[in-house]
Amino acid sequence: MAHEYKLRKIVEFAETDTAGIVHFSNYFRYMEMTEHAFFRSLGLSIHPRDPKSTIGWPRIDAHCEFLGPLRFEDEIEVHLQIRKKSKRSLVYQFNIRKISGDKNKAVARGSIAVVCVARDPLSGNMKAAEIPDAISNKLAVAPELQKSAS
Amino acid sequence: MAHEYKLRKIVEFAETDTAGIVHFSNYFRYMEMTEHAFFRSLGLSIHPRDPKSTIGWPRIDAHCEFLGPLRFEDEIEVHLQIRKKSKRSLVYQFNIRKISGDKNKAVARGSIAVVCVARDPLSGNMKAAEIPDAISNKLAVAPELQKSAS
Amino acid sequence: MAHEYKLRKIVEFAETDTAGIVHFSNYFRYMEMTEHAFFRSLGLSIHPRDPKSTIGWPRIDAHCEFLGPLRFEDEIEVHLQIRKKSKRSLVYQFNIRKISGDKNKAVARGSIAVVCVARDPLSGNMKAAEIPDAISNKLAVAPELQKSAS
Amino acid sequence: MAHEYKLRKIVEFAETDTAGIVHFSNYFRYMEMTEHAFFRSLGLSIHPRDPKSTIGWPRIDAHCEFLGPLRFEDEIEVHLQIRKKSKRSLVYQFNIRKISGDKNKAVARGSIAVVCVARDPLSGNMKAAEIPDAISNKLAVAPELQKSAS
Repeated sequence: MAHEYKLRKIVEFAETDTAGIVHFSNYFRYMEMTEHAFFRSLGLSIHPRDPKSTIGWPRIDAHCEFLGPLRFEDEIEVHLQIRKKSKRSLVYQFNIRKISGDKNKAVARGSIAVVCVARDPLSGNMKAAEIPDAISNKLAVAPELQKSAS
Repeated sequence: MAHEYKLRKIVEFAETDTAGIVHFSNYFRYMEMTEHAFFRSLGLSIHPRDPKSTIGWPRIDAHCEFLGPLRFEDEIEVHLQIRKKSKRSLVYQFNIRKISGDKNKAVARGSIAVVCVARDPLSGNMKAAEIPDAISNKLAVAPELQKSAS
Repeated sequence: MAHEYKLRKIVEFAETDTAGIVHFSNYFRYMEMTEHAFFRSLGLSIHPRDPKSTIGWPRIDAHCEFLGPLRFEDEIEVHLQIRKKSKRSLVYQFNIRKISGDKNKAVARGSIAVVCVARDPLSGNMKAAEIPDAISNKLAVAPELQKSAS
Repeated sequence: MAHEYKLRKIVEFAETDTAGIVHFSNYFRYMEMTEHAFFRSLGLSIHPRDPKSTIGWPRIDAHCEFLGPLRFEDEIEVHLQIRKKSKRSLVYQFNIRKISGDKNKAVARGSIAVVCVARDPLSGNMKAAEIPDAISNKLAVAPELQKSAS
């Protein structure tokens, strides 16, 4: 069972804006990229290629605190931890650090809550579903976050 | 003094993803578009063209609850209200409704907190600054939200 | 039958980059937005909501010459004209002008070629298809471009 | 002197659209990412952090032929080659292949032409400039493309 994942990436030019820093909406993309890489690291996909697969993971809540700016070509590390896990939903916590340059520095922390749904493959309509065992059995709440919640 | 603004727009194709719905990061762009249109409606700009202007508005917090999906060509209305105003910061509240189709329906609510900074025009470095009177005098907390806070 | 369409829009903050100008990839989004608005103006959609609809329009070629920069809050007009029309494909030509400020000025010209396909609603696989009459009958090559091609 | 570079990446969820494939505008971002990684591999940056640096590389032409679709989690290789080099401009040629799954397959080929400019650090205004020797000396036209041009 896995409870965390770390992704490293370089800030791309197209992710910045005319203020010279990463557009705030892209922090949410960084968090999601990390979630998807976490699933891949477990042999899973949040959106499997198989057309018969109907499981989806719409987001129901997303939050980010911005602690410092990121600029083009900064290298970052996004640390995902599972904060909550229920039959039908997951909450991820994210800490983003700038790891290039002279100091390793927290630049954002955030969270994304997702629910498991079954999507109708034709209409795209979604209804709540339980997380399949094949997925749920691989995921655990981060021990560090379990303590803080008790 | 103004305390709210409403923006209408159509969901663009490039804003959707392979799940058939608007990518969640784009809700934050919808909120920001509305903030910027609000400023324009007051004869202001959050990023004036004048190179001598050094005022900037980095985001320090962003939050969104997603209540329902949006699809390509849905028409939406984003309702911005000022929730808090201090000497150096603003908090906007947003309600996003789908207004096309058979029913007008809430699809998201969120908030963005921004601080006023002075940017060094050469280095891009930013430090906290008071909101200039020429801007502050045009902005007021929404009466509806003032009551709920008391 | 229609052969052209004009769309006006404001340059959004998230469309700019750290060089202070609109990221070049967004010019292609501006062109596509205009194509989609053109279709809507004819009571059509390039991606109808009906799950039984299987028509799609993948792009096979896209080109843009950049004649001048665009900045945050510039107002632009995108002029679409149909340059070619065959049984299975369309070529659009685009002229983008900056219309805010003191002068109306060409900032880009480009083209997008699309083919009509039938998409398998489950697998998403696509194969070439003839443009349905209900669509084809509404579209004509721009007279101005017809002459130049002869 | 270097004349080519290869970048590998995974297709991200936010890069796809409701047709189930990568939005065509993102192929241009893939090309640019590769250009920037190429510069970094030479100890250069197309947008140096130093505020005294005034060199910029606006795009003057971009073209892409789309040969096949890309989907979420496809792995791709972007092959950049320098096609032309003059005192003030460069033309890059790109070949994008899908390298995941059962076959390695060309999915796009394109080009981007850039000019060297000096940007006024305050106004952001740009004027044509010669490519500095420190950059030009590191770049060569790809031998393969030199032949085809003769």
